[in-house]
Amino acid sequence: MTVYEVGPRDGLQNEPAVVPTARKLELVAKLAAAGLPFVEATSFVSPRWIPQLADADGVGAGLPDFPGVTYLALVPNARGLERLRAALASRTAPGLPELRPAVFVSASQSHNRKNQNRSIEEAMADIAGVVGEARTGRMRVRAYLSTVWGCPYEGAVEVDGVVRLTEQLLACGCYQVSLGDTIGVGTPAQTRRILERLLARLPAEALALHMHDTRGTALANVLAGLDMGIRCFDASVGGLGGCPYAPGASGNLATEDLVYMLHGMGFETGIDYRRLLEAGALAEQLVGRPLPGRALRAERAPV
Amino acid sequence: MTVYEVGPRDGLQNEPAVVPTARKLELVAKLAAAGLPFVEATSFVSPRWIPQLADADGVGAGLPDFPGVTYLALVPNARGLERLRAALASRTAPGLPELRPAVFVSASQSHNRKNQNRSIEEAMADIAGVVGEARTGRMRVRAYLSTVWGCPYEGAVEVDGVVRLTEQLLACGCYQVSLGDTIGVGTPAQTRRILERLLARLPAEALALHMHDTRGTALANVLAGLDMGIRCFDASVGGLGGCPYAPGASGNLATEDLVYMLHGMGFETGIDYRRLLEAGALAEQLVGRPLPGRALRAERAPV
Repeated sequence: MTVYEVGPRDGLQNEPAVVPTARKLELVAKLAAAGLPFVEATSFVSPRWIPQLADADGVGAGLPDFPGVTYLALVPNARGLERLRAALASRTAPGLPELRPAVFVSASQSHNRKNQNRSIEEAMADIAGVVGEARTGRMRVRAYLSTVWGCPYEGAVEVDGVVRLTEQLLACGCYQVSLGDTIGVGTPAQTRRILERLLARLPAEALALHMHDTRGTALANVLAGLDMGIRCFDASVGGLGGCPYAPGASGNLATEDLVYMLHGMGFETGIDYRRLLEAGALAEQLVGRPLPGRALRAERAPV
Repeated sequence: MTVYEVGPRDGLQNEPAVVPTARKLELVAKLAAAGLPFVEATSFVSPRWIPQLADADGVGAGLPDFPGVTYLALVPNARGLERLRAALASRTAPGLPELRPAVFVSASQSHNRKNQNRSIEEAMADIAGVVGEARTGRMRVRAYLSTVWGCPYEGAVEVDGVVRLTEQLLACGCYQVSLGDTIGVGTPAQTRRILERLLARLPAEALALHMHDTRGTALANVLAGLDMGIRCFDASVGGLGGCPYAPGASGNLATEDLVYMLHGMGFETGIDYRRLLEAGALAEQLVGRPLPGRALRAERAPV
């Protein structure tokens, strides 16, 4: 069972507070020390787009060394990949943990235009180039496909398009596509319909679920995925990354809640639940407010 | 698909604020108007035990008339049943909605002693008497079995005991046993194990699930129940009724989250989701703080 921690990137990107680089690295270190095998640390998008992640070069250069952890960073285009490489090159110690690029695209045209200011087709062309170049440099690339369960502008999203884009992302060299319920509207019946279509053509290892808990359904959707053989899930420490439009509302599934359920069902994750709760308490300090994760609040842990 | 709304009783009982009777009845009315078929309105326990529900007689006498709604009230003993009957008798209009007694017992000895100051066996003896008397008066009686997934004092709870108590509650005349995850520790694998044992001996209609969302797993457990044929679930408007030991932590599954998922999966509940959100907004007003329900916060509705 594999958990991808996305809090330092996907979480902090959606928080109003801008957290200093050193404190971000402290959070990343605590997550790696808790046994998270994959930690998405930052995003090499233009600092003008996302001021919260304007320090991507510093974060990429300063990633802490922990045995067994692999870091990821979002890369929207060739310029982003260059910056990721520069960050890698600037690191002084040899043998530091891997830093993988991750590419992203939406399953709905309107969301992709709003998010990236270009069409899905333009984004896919750029992704093919970035992935080709990254793989030439022996890097493995993960992909995020967002708005799979619904789009904030278009509503329903066609499963046909989801299947086609997932196959294209894998065909151009990504090792896995993480399917995102960006606005947290998914219910298990829909998750089953989407996964049935995908798993008829692709192995379960090629897929991950990135569920949002906006309406409380994240773990029910995870269960639907588990039952169908999915073994990779994304989550954000403490549920970091609320919905900007509803103060206190929840976006990302909290890593503690996910790990609590997986462990309770007998799945092994390699994650130390107690240390993960400590990372959640630190995340709350960084953003200066209680985070929406359920388990974190139920089992208050000292930092 | 049947939803039992427990907010006015189970929710308000666990809130620090004491809500005036008239405002409780306003909430009950809004829930009934939203189409909830069953609303648990109060508890005829000693006012010294639960000051928040000390006005049970007034609530029972003042329950609003809505077509299709059935009310419930907890009844711990013969004295409680007497008070329920007196409340019924004091109502002036004829043909007012039914008010059913509900009995309760824990699956763990320590929790039952702490909660009721008597053993499980003593509680069961009293329950048999109350149910017999209620049924003589043509009343239908529901039962709550708590700490089924775990006990705050004993930890693990034996499924054997859960099966035995469930069968005894049905045998003495209760029409349904609602199985409670009182401390919100359940995960779907455990839910499946418990339900497999029960459904080998009992029809699904005899059972309901009363899940808590303390660690975010409530709807995943509901999904496990749905998959096994359970068609009755308890929930609390807005997630009313937090954990006293962790401010802001969540106890009861929020009715809005449950209904969102059920409707999204194509199940019919007879509940108007928008009007339910309005009831949630009113519940927040009554307790003077934001409630933990996810959907309620995501889809802010005006009162």
